[in-house]
Amino acid sequence: MSSKSKKQVEVIFSPALFEYRQIKENYIIVIADILRATTSICTAFKWGVRSMIPVRTVQEARDYKEKGYIVAGERIEETFEFADFGNGALEFMNDKIKDKDIVHSTTNGTVAITMAKQAEPNEILIGAFSNITSLSDYLLKKEENVLIFCSGWKNSFCIEDTVFAGALLERIIEKGGYINHNDSAYSSIDLWSKTKDKLMEQMQSKASHMNRLKKYKMDDVFPYTYTFDTCNVVPKLYNDRLKDALKEEK
Amino acid sequence: MSSKSKKQVEVIFSPALFEYRQIKENYIIVIADILRATTSICTAFKWGVRSMIPVRTVQEARDYKEKGYIVAGERIEETFEFADFGNGALEFMNDKIKDKDIVHSTTNGTVAITMAKQAEPNEILIGAFSNITSLSDYLLKKEENVLIFCSGWKNSFCIEDTVFAGALLERIIEKGGYINHNDSAYSSIDLWSKTKDKLMEQMQSKASHMNRLKKYKMDDVFPYTYTFDTCNVVPKLYNDRLKDALKEEK
Repeated sequence: MSSKSKKQVEVIFSPALFEYRQIKENYIIVIADILRATTSICTAFKWGVRSMIPVRTVQEARDYKEKGYIVAGERIEETFEFADFGNGALEFMNDKIKDKDIVHSTTNGTVAITMAKQAEPNEILIGAFSNITSLSDYLLKKEENVLIFCSGWKNSFCIEDTVFAGALLERIIEKGGYINHNDSAYSSIDLWSKTKDKLMEQMQSKASHMNRLKKYKMDDVFPYTYTFDTCNVVPKLYNDRLKDALKEEK
Repeated sequence: MSSKSKKQVEVIFSPALFEYRQIKENYIIVIADILRATTSICTAFKWGVRSMIPVRTVQEARDYKEKGYIVAGERIEETFEFADFGNGALEFMNDKIKDKDIVHSTTNGTVAITMAKQAEPNEILIGAFSNITSLSDYLLKKEENVLIFCSGWKNSFCIEDTVFAGALLERIIEKGGYINHNDSAYSSIDLWSKTKDKLMEQMQSKASHMNRLKKYKMDDVFPYTYTFDTCNVVPKLYNDRLKDALKEEK
């Protein structure tokens, strides 16, 4: 219990703040890009994808495509015409992805994954409302510090990622014996507690990214995005690929 | 009213996020570094300082000192041995500063002022709980967009600056006909509403910077910092100097 009680938590609100994080040793990074990458990744694993290869640039995705890989992804406000799938969770509810390896590149989420990888934490996990219980159960068995890395929107703060961070912290801090010294972690919990009773309604009125997605007719995924525990998976980065840790580490 | 209703608000949580702000035209920047720079600046003006010259580096402060200027400032965790005054508000409650020009350099606040200046907004103002009503009354007469720039702690998010931003927004948004499309502005207001009933107690438990200041015995200023409207001043940058806009623009 004494080592457990020294575990710390922290929330990073934007890729631009990642280098200023306080936790830099013995830690697990949880990536959150609720709209839409991390919700979609959880969904793909629920629907049986074997692995997902997150890549940062459209050019990397194109190179994989030319080698014969299936490519999923989007750039909002830009084209990504050669992709086989977009980045909406509903698209991954599809038997065609079963046992496949899919290359995945998105506006914000895969950028954060790439940055996290360069930092070489002990583990990199994918979090969303869709796998929050599976993820928190997984974390509660760990002894490492936890850093929740919100992808944001092109380096801007996004409320939906932060509220998710608060929801996850609420589930792990007390039970897991974590210490919270971090202003952003306290604030995430406060923002979660202010919005949780009417989560989707609150996000509709406060999350600018939802208006952006609505404009591009990418709003079909909203109710699903804010539904808890649709996916009993914990996507985790093994070298350059995401796989479901619940299967890999059974 | 039609032009008024298009005014926007935004909150920037850290100097590292300033370049990603959405508001870049026709705007006023309010700098918040509640612990301690902006609270101290308001206090100095209340006690009759003529002007304050914010400088970013210790070397700049030293150069001014050698030219005979009075220098105030601090670097927490570093020395600043040649300064005449520190950066605590209580130090400025002193008749010796009356009608003087004081050079001022601090860990976070004066860094943010310098960055704001380079962006060339219409106005740069100083905000703290100590001048919140004077400042909001001043802003309510303006037609510009308002960007609240939280200084943070060495680029990390600080809850006390954010809660102040929420308190200021609560006072101006509705009355001023501002539109809020900004996730960070909504979140600041939510964080303010979660903490305002027991502001100082909440900050004591959630603001890591308060523990840092306590460690360096700089906590004498806490009760004063969270007291509203002790200073009927609106410090504003005119070229390279802060002066009290309520006197300058009478």
